[in-house]
Parts: sequence; structure tokens; C-alpha cells
Amino acid sequence: MPQRSKHRKKSSTPRSKKGASARKDWKVALVGYGTVGRSVAKILTEDTTGPFELTHIFNRNIARKKTAGLPSHIRWTEDIDDVLESDADIVIELIGGLDPAGKWIERALRAGKSVVTANKQLICQRGAELMKTAREAGRRLEFGASVAGGIPAIIGIQEGLAGDRLFKLAGILNGTCNFILTKMESMGASFEEALKEAQELGFAEADPTADVGGADARAKLVILTQAGLRVDVRNEQVVARSISTIQAVDFLYVGDLNCTIRQLSLSQKDTTDGLRLYAAVQPAVIPSNSPLAQVQGSQNLVMATGQYAGRMAFSGYGAGGDPTAVAVVSDLYAIARTAGAPSESLPMVPQVPDHVSGDFTVPHYLRFVVRDRPGILAEIAAVLAKYHVGIDAVLQKPGFPESALSFVMTLEACDSAVLQRALTEIAQLDFHVQLPLCLPIYAD
Amino acid sequence: MPQRSKHRKKSSTPRSKKGASARKDWKVALVGYGTVGRSVAKILTEDTTGPFELTHIFNRNIARKKTAGLPSHIRWTEDIDDVLESDADIVIELIGGLDPAGKWIERALRAGKSVVTANKQLICQRGAELMKTAREAGRRLEFGASVAGGIPAIIGIQEGLAGDRLFKLAGILNGTCNFILTKMESMGASFEEALKEAQELGFAEADPTADVGGADARAKLVILTQAGLRVDVRNEQVVARSISTIQAVDFLYVGDLNCTIRQLSLSQKDTTDGLRLYAAVQPAVIPSNSPLAQVQGSQNLVMATGQYAGRMAFSGYGAGGDPTAVAVVSDLYAIARTAGAPSESLPMVPQVPDHVSGDFTVPHYLRFVVRDRPGILAEIAAVLAKYHVGIDAVLQKPGFPESALSFVMTLEACDSAVLQRALTEIAQLDFHVQLPLCLPIYAD
Repeated sequence: MPQRSKHRKKSSTPRSKKGASARKDWKVALVGYGTVGRSVAKILTEDTTGPFELTHIFNRNIARKKTAGLPSHIRWTEDIDDVLESDADIVIELIGGLDPAGKWIERALRAGKSVVTANKQLICQRGAELMKTAREAGRRLEFGASVAGGIPAIIGIQEGLAGDRLFKLAGILNGTCNFILTKMESMGASFEEALKEAQELGFAEADPTADVGGADARAKLVILTQAGLRVDVRNEQVVARSISTIQAVDFLYVGDLNCTIRQLSLSQKDTTDGLRLYAAVQPAVIPSNSPLAQVQGSQNLVMATGQYAGRMAFSGYGAGGDPTAVAVVSDLYAIARTAGAPSESLPMVPQVPDHVSGDFTVPHYLRFVVRDRPGILAEIAAVLAKYHVGIDAVLQKPGFPESALSFVMTLEACDSAVLQRALTEIAQLDFHVQLPLCLPIYAD
Repeated sequence: MPQRSKHRKKSSTPRSKKGASARKDWKVALVGYGTVGRSVAKILTEDTTGPFELTHIFNRNIARKKTAGLPSHIRWTEDIDDVLESDADIVIELIGGLDPAGKWIERALRAGKSVVTANKQLICQRGAELMKTAREAGRRLEFGASVAGGIPAIIGIQEGLAGDRLFKLAGILNGTCNFILTKMESMGASFEEALKEAQELGFAEADPTADVGGADARAKLVILTQAGLRVDVRNEQVVARSISTIQAVDFLYVGDLNCTIRQLSLSQKDTTDGLRLYAAVQPAVIPSNSPLAQVQGSQNLVMATGQYAGRMAFSGYGAGGDPTAVAVVSDLYAIARTAGAPSESLPMVPQVPDHVSGDFTVPHYLRFVVRDRPGILAEIAAVLAKYHVGIDAVLQKPGFPESALSFVMTLEACDSAVLQRALTEIAQLDFHVQLPLCLPIYAD
């Protein structure tokens, strides 16, 4: 095992404050010095008894980024070759995006360095391939920080529950959406008001598309599904629907149903007829007593259900500099613990599914905004009946003008795809002021 | 790295159902064939693509234990030497107790086998020493199943949060106590009635002392504290108080306070003046909106709070055959993943604390049952005042007889040790029908 002897060398700059425990055996280079990078540098510098020595920090415009308080021997650079050609043992990639991050990670691995990354888009799209490169190079690629920040979700489901057969994952994976929806819930705010507040408080970016539209959560769901359900699903196979269609009035109606609304990331495996995967990221109506409904503000939750151990939940801070940095540093420790050797290739390789669908057979919530006239309910009910979709209840709050009257129907469990065809037909009717909103009701 | 070449041999009985993925590279022996052992055998047998082959099952009176449905090549034995002298690569110890379990684990490790155990009493008392034996033998000792069954708490806090500095652990670690207390809460049952139901449903043993008295949860708290807070606390240093003092009337009073009662396992590290550890297992009053209060029935919860990532929670089924077996099999995978090599000895060795105490400075709940007469409140208040303990509120429900009148005081935050001295004095007063009950109020 050559890695071990390579890495367990004495550091050239031993800090013998506490004897053996202060040996800095692992040289670490940081690529990307934003919020998470600064937290990683802080934790590594404060961790005087840890085995890591921060040797390089790469960023563009590095002169402007340079911060005080870090050891003076750190080399600040804006030339990636300084890192890739250095004697660093581990490279931490925090620049995000597919390119050049992917290329640099490949180069680092081939140069004999292990890599830790928080890059969910890259791992979700090229994870398997980069993992293969790591294995061929005899090095490690760790990505615990790519999903749910400070929550050890990947190691929890992939290693901690390795003995189970997980078939379902459900989670709140995007703190921005959860902040917005819990704000709308508690304050009666509109989507736009809640988004604005999230932006002012730094919980949402200036361009919130990836968060609000579901792409961010989808990448995380894909990574978790590959790691936990061992299904090799691709990003583009998973439906992502925006939460921007949710209005303040929806929280009034779901409140009467003892429910709330959350951005739900859900994937479920069915092996009764080949390998089928149901996966989607979308706003959903959630009963108030569900752990999913109890996630407040920017927190995250990951629930995993297995054949043997039943349902497990992990919750905590899923984003932010410090929690994400904890995941990064935990991955450094994972590499140090096994002396940088790649994991054995256990027979846990994700299987390619025969079928991927975002259509779940569940009850649904429909909200209409109409110009009132007699016969509207009958016309909607007739279309639903044609598609054999049963109506559970009709709710109508008082106080809406006739020109934009809002009411809600809850439907018995039906296939989302069938319902979608019924809704396409219903949308042709002449009374709509807005397109109907359709949400699944997810009672776990 | 000799372990790897040793273990990655071809199995002598290859089951080539799926080519490489069905290679049974690891021979596994099961020592102890009770509820968990049967679940482990079932999971290993059903896991046709896994790398494990169950080769031996040891138990006393093995003829009576032998069950159908397992592969015929398994050797059933009541002679431990058959296991320890076999070619099994991993021994799973599920007999419990300190002896002979400890001796057999040592022998297995010295014979070059890795060991997986669910034995919390043994790990809590001799874990460090056995871990040293494993390291010297170049083998692994895993004990993920010793705490919280199907919840990957140890790997979660020790590896998944390795990058943080955890300073507090709080949990519901005993499913029997939680079943009893949630039963008392929801049904208004007495402790005795709830215990009887727990026994009838198999959630409590015929002799419930270890569960009810706190010894079971204490062993788990000690293991978690060593792994997560890295404090080398000993079992006998941690206070454990029984939940048998809780009465139905206490749930009436705490309900009025928007609280409930749970068996709380808590440990907290303070490094401002040396290394101080506060740790106790005891019934506590918990606000209803705390995650601790929301744990129902026999479920478990582990919360870990770190300097960087804040508070994380893990919840799920903490006991029972299948969840505990999942933890055992996950540990098998952990050994296979690193080819049985021992972990690097990172500088994460638990430190010996300068001081261990079960006294927390928190608000308290006092419940009195008295023979009513004028002046009782004044006498109690006078003693509390003498010890500078402030009274927050006095609650008295109507309907109690004068001969056994029950009332409650809530106190402002004070040191439990000071309060205990005041209570010793109060207990001397002449009006008590029962000794006063004192519970900490834990608002996280």
C-alpha cells in the first residue's frame, strides 16, 4: 500500500506543540476562496491538533482576497498550476461549476492528490467518471459537502446504512426554498415578498433561479439517489418544478387541511417489475405532523427508508459557510483515516434504471382562480370523472371578488400523469383567470 | 498491507450469480443467535450480491436454535473454539455482557479476525483497551450497533462531523423508557401500567431495571461522548436516575407548562477552565416544541451540537432485531470497504476530563405531595430563599384530597447540586406524603 508510506512522512514544518498529535502530515490546497473557502481556512487554522496543514490558496484576483490571520507560510496564488504541481496531498475544490472544476479535479487526481469537493453539479453529472479516475490513480474523491452541508447525509446513508436496502429518500434539500415557504407560511407573505427578504438576509442569491426552480435540490437528490438507492439516475431524467407558482392563498387553504407546503425532493425505487425509479423535486402539500413540515427556515432534512431499519431522519443546517466547511473538513479526516487509499470497489455500483418517472400515485391539491359563473364546478368535475379521478373535497374561502375567485379541490390518489392530461383539458375551459395549480399531497 | 491480499482471496464457494458482484470474499461467523442474530443471518442470506458469506453460528443449546431457511453449509456450534479457530475473517459478537464476550473478542482479534459487536456495556467499559488490541493485531473492531440500533449515530458524529468540534450531545437513547413515558403522556397511564404494557408488547424486558434505571442509556451516552466529544468519561462517573419516580400527575402539570417528560441523556463539554464534562441520564421536563419531545414510542434521537455546524439531529428506530442488525451489517461493509485494515490513529483520542459532574445549571420542576395545612408554601419558600433559589411559578390542580395534595413549583435556573441541598432540608419538614420529585427543565 504505497499511499500510506507516502503520506505518513514527517511534515517538513513540524509544529510540535502537542507532540505526535500536532504533526501536520497532510498538506492541503484550497481552490476557491469564497464563503465556504474562508470557513475551511478558519477551521483548519484553528484545528491545531489536526493532521492538516493548509499550504496553498487559489483564487482569481487573489490580492484582493487575501485575508489576515492565516499562517504566513500559505502560498496565495491565481495560477492553478502552482497548486497542481505542488506537493499538496489533498486539493479542496470550491470554485463550483462544471468547467474548469472538472478538468482541475482530474489533473489533481492524476497528479497523485486526493480531492475533496462541494461541487454538486459536477458530482451529479460526472461523479461516476471522476470516481473511476480517482480509483485508477489510487486516490480518493470525497464529496460529502455537495449535499446538505453540515448534515452527514451521504456517509449516513451510504456507509451508516450500508447494511439496509434503502428504497425511498425524501428530503428538504434547498434552504432557500424552505426559508421562502416557511416565511410565506408564518407571515402570510407573497412569494415575491418572501424571496426579497431571503435575498436581503443572504439566504437567496441575486439570481434565485437554480434554488427556486429546483435545479439545486435536483442535483442533490440525484447524488443521494445514486449513493443511497444505488440507482444511476441522470439529472435530466428528474422532473424539477418551481415553487414560484405558490401563492399566499395556498397557505390559507392547506392550513385548513392541517397541512403546509414544502419543496419536496423525493425518489423511490420499485423493483417489482424491472428497476423503476420515481423521482421529482417539486412543491408539495405536506401534513403538518410530518417531519418534513417541521423543517423551519434554511434547515435541511434527509429521510431514508429501508427494508430492514424503517425510516431514519437526519436534520440540521444544510448550507452556509461553516456547516459546509465542516463537511469539507470531515472529508479530509475521512481521507486521513484511510491514509488516502481508495475504497475497495464493493458491489455497490449504482444500477441503471429501466424506467424513470416523476409521476407518483398520490392524492392531489388543485387550486383554481376563476371568473365566477354558474356551472364551473360541474364542468371541472365532468373532466375529472372522464379520467376516473375522484374528488375528495372542495374548499372555498369567503371574501374573494367574483372576477378572481379562488377555490380548492382535493383529489383522491391518482397517477400524476393521468391528472396532468385531465388538467390540460380543464385548462381549455373559459373561466380561468390563472392556470390551475396542481400539487401532490405527500403523506409519508 | 497484508490484510488486503489476505482477504481479497477468491471464495472457495463462489456463487457466480452476478459475476464479480456475487463473490463472497468475507467469511463471517455469528456468535449469539437471539433476536438480533437471527436478523443478521436473514439479511446476510438475502444479500445475494454482498461480499459476505455466513459460515458459523455459535449459541448455547444450538440444536434448539437451529432455524430453517439458511444455507446448509453454515456450521452450527456451541463450541466457541470452532469459531475462533476457523478461517472466518470477521466475528460478530452478539452474546452481550462483559464475560466471556470480552475474552472472546480479544481472542478473535489476536487470531487475526476483525470483530463487529453490539455490546454496549463491554464497549463502554473496555472499548479503548479492545480498540488497542485490534490495532496491535492489525484488525478492526466496529461497534456501530452498540448505540441507537438503526441510527448511524456513531459514524455520523465521529466521521460525518469529524470536521466540527462537538461540545454537546443530547438524546433519547432508550426506547423502553420512551415507550413508557409517551404512553403515560398520551393515555394518562401510571408508570406501572405503562411498564406492564411495554412488557406485554415486547418493548421492555421481564427485569426492566437496566432500561428504567438509566444504566442502558448511560452506557450509550458514554460511548457517544467518547466518540463525539472525545472525552474519556467512565460509566461510573455518570449519574443515572430512574424514570420510575414519574407519576401520571406529573404529565398533567407539565402539560400546563407546554412541556412533556422524557428520559434525557445529556453530555456537555466545557473547556473554559480545564476540561469539564457535565453528563447525566435522567427524566427531564422538555418543552413540547423540542425535537426531544417529539420522539414517540420506541424511537431514538441523537442531537449533536458543534462549534461550526450548529445542531444536527439523527432519528429513527434505535432498537429491535432488524434495525440493530442493519447497524451490524453496515459495520461489516465498513470493514470490507477498507479491506479490514485498521484505521489510522488520528489525533482524536478521547481526553481524560479534569472534572465530571451531573449537575446542570437549569430551571427545575418540583412536585410535592403533602398533607395539607397552612404555611407549607412559606416553609418551602424559606428554605429555597436560604439557598438563593428563585421560584418561578406555583401550580396546583384542583381535586386532590387534603391528605395527599399534590402541587408543583417551577424554579429559576440554579445549580442542581445547590438545589439538592435545599431539597434535603425541605424533605425534613413534616408535611410530606411522598418525597418531593425534582426534575431539570431542559430547553435546548
